[in-house]
Amino acid sequence: MTDFAATRASFFLPEGVIYLDGNSLGPLPRAAADRVHDTVTEEWGKLLIRGWNAGAGGTGWMPQPDRLGDRIGRLIGAPAGSVAVGDTLSIKVFQCLAAALALRPDRSVILSDTGNFPSDLYMADGLTRLMQGKTVRTVAPEDVTAALDETIAVLMLTEVDYRTGRMHDMAQLTAAAQAKGIVVVWDLAHSAGALPVDLQGCGPEFAAGCTYKYLNAGPGAPAFVYVRPDIAEHVQPALAGWLGHAAPFDFDLTYRPGPGLARMRVGTPAVLQMAALEAALDIWDRVDMKDVRARSITLSERFIAEVERNCGDEVALASPRDPHQRGSQVSFRHPEGYAVMQALIARGVIGDFRAPDRIRFGFAPLYNTEEEVVEAARILADILTHRSWDTPRFHARAAVT
Amino acid sequence: MTDFAATRASFFLPEGVIYLDGNSLGPLPRAAADRVHDTVTEEWGKLLIRGWNAGAGGTGWMPQPDRLGDRIGRLIGAPAGSVAVGDTLSIKVFQCLAAALALRPDRSVILSDTGNFPSDLYMADGLTRLMQGKTVRTVAPEDVTAALDETIAVLMLTEVDYRTGRMHDMAQLTAAAQAKGIVVVWDLAHSAGALPVDLQGCGPEFAAGCTYKYLNAGPGAPAFVYVRPDIAEHVQPALAGWLGHAAPFDFDLTYRPGPGLARMRVGTPAVLQMAALEAALDIWDRVDMKDVRARSITLSERFIAEVERNCGDEVALASPRDPHQRGSQVSFRHPEGYAVMQALIARGVIGDFRAPDRIRFGFAPLYNTEEEVVEAARILADILTHRSWDTPRFHARAAVT
Repeated sequence: MTDFAATRASFFLPEGVIYLDGNSLGPLPRAAADRVHDTVTEEWGKLLIRGWNAGAGGTGWMPQPDRLGDRIGRLIGAPAGSVAVGDTLSIKVFQCLAAALALRPDRSVILSDTGNFPSDLYMADGLTRLMQGKTVRTVAPEDVTAALDETIAVLMLTEVDYRTGRMHDMAQLTAAAQAKGIVVVWDLAHSAGALPVDLQGCGPEFAAGCTYKYLNAGPGAPAFVYVRPDIAEHVQPALAGWLGHAAPFDFDLTYRPGPGLARMRVGTPAVLQMAALEAALDIWDRVDMKDVRARSITLSERFIAEVERNCGDEVALASPRDPHQRGSQVSFRHPEGYAVMQALIARGVIGDFRAPDRIRFGFAPLYNTEEEVVEAARILADILTHRSWDTPRFHARAAVT
Repeated sequence: MTDFAATRASFFLPEGVIYLDGNSLGPLPRAAADRVHDTVTEEWGKLLIRGWNAGAGGTGWMPQPDRLGDRIGRLIGAPAGSVAVGDTLSIKVFQCLAAALALRPDRSVILSDTGNFPSDLYMADGLTRLMQGKTVRTVAPEDVTAALDETIAVLMLTEVDYRTGRMHDMAQLTAAAQAKGIVVVWDLAHSAGALPVDLQGCGPEFAAGCTYKYLNAGPGAPAFVYVRPDIAEHVQPALAGWLGHAAPFDFDLTYRPGPGLARMRVGTPAVLQMAALEAALDIWDRVDMKDVRARSITLSERFIAEVERNCGDEVALASPRDPHQRGSQVSFRHPEGYAVMQALIARGVIGDFRAPDRIRFGFAPLYNTEEEVVEAARILADILTHRSWDTPRFHARAAVT
């Protein structure tokens, strides 16, 4: 059994804050502060350029992203050597889409859904604008299966809807797509660290995700990319950076892709961010994703029950009621959702707002407790009862909402 | 006048080390250690998600890359609002090339030279493989001008050759290319912080560079991209990430590019790396690039003179002899260059090796002194005289060379 009291103690959680926004940015693992500081002073400071071979605690900054990838792999059902860390999620989605289209050159459409995170659609759009005769088609989430046909080259979906937590059935959709010869790309932004993922069992060709949400690797933490091992040697990298070359330090003028997954590397890894990610993964190494899922359901079910009991009709559940069809987050609608969330934050309950009217709460079993969700629901009810959200200061929009 | 004693005192330089590899990874600005630590503990730790608006010392993590871009802009002759920070240099080169090709859709060739950093050629290659009918052509550096003709859509060059320090004439080549209707992209990897660059005066459409070399922003520090202000509104972003959207937090399903340069943003900025970059730029704010160039020439001239006086025919200068045709680095050839460099590093003189036979020394006026280069030349002579490089341990190759 995962010891959630121990995992909670591993995080710095500011006093007076109930943090229900780990689905946007996870909190600071206590060990990350020293780890990053050490990387800066002992490694960058003293090893200087030698850090590429001798940094990261002696194992080298250069291979670090692959070691970190393997540790993320365990959390998403991916074998060793199939997950690499680097860049941002948007870049990794672009790489997956380009590689996926190249595997199905006789077809022209990338299919996605309107519940996907917009950046994924934008990246697909940008990619197809570069290419001749390729297009992006989006359908409603519930219409994806019906839209799978022999014109589709690539199916790109995000498993958990960022607005509502609604989950796709990864196994079923992957199988249905592959039965039509479609290459499959999953975005695991709201899945990795939130619920068990079985990439090996489901069999998609590609997946990508980020590490700053449930994995708690910090602001601007790197993304990860998964390539199914049996196709890794056939992938044609569109972003053919030198660190994906078979022999980067030969400085050949001609690109030769590195072995398998190595070719998904692009440029120099963000070493300071990698140090924070490593500290975050030290916590994850002691965690069983099945326990995380069970506790996530307990927390979200309790929160929904408390909100519905305390708040009456003031808010309406915007997430699936069946916990098995939700990720690790719950949203409610309120016509003045933005102001309501600002009022909550002022009372120490940090969630976030997603346009047009959703207040969103993430549940991270590694540090959230049942007492916290009960208290958060009580404060929400209090704010709604007293309309304390209805002041100009809570309506003023910040740059990032 | 720049106070170089003060700038040198701003860096942590390990005892017993003469660091001549700042052209690969600059040393640690003393203030960066606290700045990064603060960003981790006080901002990520205590502000949590609110850091996007309130982090970076109160100015917000989200706009930070643009503020940092403006400060880099001063060093490369770029006006405010024309330089953005993010991603890696390879990604920024890809963005520039895609945007440049889109400005010249009637032509098909990206021209570069064999002295370019291989990653730039690889990225160009990857891009043209995605597109129909586009190709990459490379010529010898001295043949670039002759190769400019009406088939060329884009000229992509690195100003300073990473192997030898040989400089292109940015003003002349930009003008010659533009006279033939060619869109120009400059890679400033070995220029930014090494020598004065006048982007506004030279007038290329695009430029990109990195911040971990002469700018001293640390391992994995972000890249930067310049777009000439008059064309920024016409750029079609190929990597259409959500933070380049006109209104990222509206979560539109359709991409609308942000105003001007904003559209070159892709995903979430690497906040910890940005903190280190900010500390590095605090030093640069007190520096005049003209002083840097004068001192760089003094250092490299003295080094060449000392090496040639002490080492005789054992090594051969691989860089232009005229300092005005060199960047801020000097290379020598030696048939056993790898082992010679390892022997130097063992004696505390850190430079690097570039295949097949070049030992490379970078001169960073912000912290290198004339005494250091004289001492480095003396140690090199000693190693060559006693053939102390000729032991198995100096021939054993490390992963990163």
